[in-house]
Amino acid sequence: MAKQIGDKSLQKLTNLHRPHKELINLMPLQTGSMLTEDAKKALVEFGDGYSICDFCQGSLWNITNPPIREFVQDLLPKFLGCEVAALTYGARDGIFMVMHSLAEPGDSVIVDGNRHYTTVVSAERAGLDVIDVASSGYPEFRIEVNDFIPLIKKHNPKLILLTYPDGNYGNLPDAKRLGEIAQEYDIPYIVNGAYAVGRMPVNMEDLGADFIVGSGHKSMASAGPSGVLGMRRRWESKVLRKSQTYDNKEIELLGCSLRGVPLVTLMASFPSVAERIQHWDEQVSKAQWFSGELEKLGFRQLGEIPHRHDLLHFETPMLYDISKHVRERGYFLYKELKERGIWGPQPGLTKTFKASTFAANEEQLKFVIDSFKAILSKYS
Amino acid sequence: MAKQIGDKSLQKLTNLHRPHKELINLMPLQTGSMLTEDAKKALVEFGDGYSICDFCQGSLWNITNPPIREFVQDLLPKFLGCEVAALTYGARDGIFMVMHSLAEPGDSVIVDGNRHYTTVVSAERAGLDVIDVASSGYPEFRIEVNDFIPLIKKHNPKLILLTYPDGNYGNLPDAKRLGEIAQEYDIPYIVNGAYAVGRMPVNMEDLGADFIVGSGHKSMASAGPSGVLGMRRRWESKVLRKSQTYDNKEIELLGCSLRGVPLVTLMASFPSVAERIQHWDEQVSKAQWFSGELEKLGFRQLGEIPHRHDLLHFETPMLYDISKHVRERGYFLYKELKERGIWGPQPGLTKTFKASTFAANEEQLKFVIDSFKAILSKYS
Repeated sequence: MAKQIGDKSLQKLTNLHRPHKELINLMPLQTGSMLTEDAKKALVEFGDGYSICDFCQGSLWNITNPPIREFVQDLLPKFLGCEVAALTYGARDGIFMVMHSLAEPGDSVIVDGNRHYTTVVSAERAGLDVIDVASSGYPEFRIEVNDFIPLIKKHNPKLILLTYPDGNYGNLPDAKRLGEIAQEYDIPYIVNGAYAVGRMPVNMEDLGADFIVGSGHKSMASAGPSGVLGMRRRWESKVLRKSQTYDNKEIELLGCSLRGVPLVTLMASFPSVAERIQHWDEQVSKAQWFSGELEKLGFRQLGEIPHRHDLLHFETPMLYDISKHVRERGYFLYKELKERGIWGPQPGLTKTFKASTFAANEEQLKFVIDSFKAILSKYS
Repeated sequence: MAKQIGDKSLQKLTNLHRPHKELINLMPLQTGSMLTEDAKKALVEFGDGYSICDFCQGSLWNITNPPIREFVQDLLPKFLGCEVAALTYGARDGIFMVMHSLAEPGDSVIVDGNRHYTTVVSAERAGLDVIDVASSGYPEFRIEVNDFIPLIKKHNPKLILLTYPDGNYGNLPDAKRLGEIAQEYDIPYIVNGAYAVGRMPVNMEDLGADFIVGSGHKSMASAGPSGVLGMRRRWESKVLRKSQTYDNKEIELLGCSLRGVPLVTLMASFPSVAERIQHWDEQVSKAQWFSGELEKLGFRQLGEIPHRHDLLHFETPMLYDISKHVRERGYFLYKELKERGIWGPQPGLTKTFKASTFAANEEQLKFVIDSFKAILSKYS
């Protein structure tokens, strides 16, 4: 076996390293999920497979050591503003669970046009038709939630979904107004809060939603894969329906759902996550200031202005112009930034890039701004 | 928020500890998933959410740094003896993916009567009827694979599944013969190797199977949740079918499937796992010797004798008798063993218990045997 595989291939696996450690991190996927010190310790403590199951009596969410029961049954519902909470492998898995439970193949769901690709793939997996509510398009890509109304009337969907905020522009549509619409037309309403839950205050009940999904590995300082799903009590018997053969096992969770080390990091980071969302105003100010400074350099911020989220998307034609004339092509930007200790824009991209200011402090962001200045002047 | 939740609840989460560290571990769920030193390092290196996605270009299995592409597209297929490999959240998730892809609600699947509960729950999630092939019953609970034939003829199933070995008795039915039957009747055949893949040599092609699932957090020295799925090339376009909207995203994987730290531990432990399966004969000898010694104490081993797997199930009426007369009731055994540095039998159980000899060496097992002797004589 080992011979057939080859020692060289095996050797590579024994010493895995990440090249982007300790850099100033602007990568939107990553800025909300850096582990707290407590989570790093928990990671090692519960690293071995099934180690959180030591005291399982047949139901993961009833384990009291570590305190999974209190986390799932008390802390998470309070945090999400919902009646019942569940653990999932990620926001997408929560969306699929809900779609698969509430709709039949051939049914329709109406979603905002800025939805993450996984919303569409989840619907495909459940056999559902997806109808998009178009955004306002370039440059702000706003979602006007009243635009859901004619589509609801026309398609009689089984579910509506709003991405709050979306992962492309960081726009925050009027989720509360859509909650009123959902109630008026009596359509179950799911909020995809993968970029909200754990970063900013968000409360399912205040939004008038039936479901909310969050992502541990995107916004809750957790290792992946991990996610949360909140719902109204009335949906519990449907989405968390039990096996007819094993009455303590939820069908959509295949018995357990999230277990192991990502769950432990989600729990260990939770106190710090619950605290940090209270400083959201400062995060928004920081993002707006950073965006303004980059606009002074000639970058154009896409999405809502003034911006209300740390996820920013910039159009940068001057960087693209440079890429056409340098040996590294689009990769020059990644290289220039990495040399300065900055990681964020996807390697290869220069026409536009996304950046999140969530994890960097003002001093670091000043350094980022100065670095962009220096890069522009170096190649001008 | 923090106030609403209560400081005491939050405080508990900041210092999570596992009580069963450093004990002699006989817990069948855990003995195959203790992390290697390399995996422990990788855990910390890639702990932050999305950190393995630094160089993702839109397809997780094409990431070359860390070397996910080589792992999934080259090493795993060789290891599993299959043409195409996939990453999953666990064995159950692989089973559901296959069922959901190959069968329609109302279809039937035929499975061995020793199947894990997740086989049934996966089928329920996919809307399928489950037909069990009964075992021989007490005390050996053998599965005779020829018993699949009349049920195949009667029910025309979309899939047959064999648990190899099962997680209750550690029995190894004739998987190869079932492969011949599957080919004769042209029924797709899935081997649930959650307790095989990573512990013992097992090769999908040799067994004549169409699919094999394995569990990282059960038998591949990996953190959970993590699993692998191997298949014949002919099933790739069905099980790994792509989204119609996003042509690089697999529908059943919701785009990515397993990502994050469990994947990294699966990779980092792989060289050691590939090596350890070559010593399976020694594992079997050790299990047989241990079982024989416990039988000398009056315990009765259930399941196949001679046993061919490290997972053992004992009937222990004398321990049950003791439990009726002591203050701790069924928990006396857990307490007595823990005091001696041994962890394994589920707390509270004394009538029967399961134990795995996979992670303990002969000296440790001798100590376990002596401990049982001492416990029996203490209470006699």
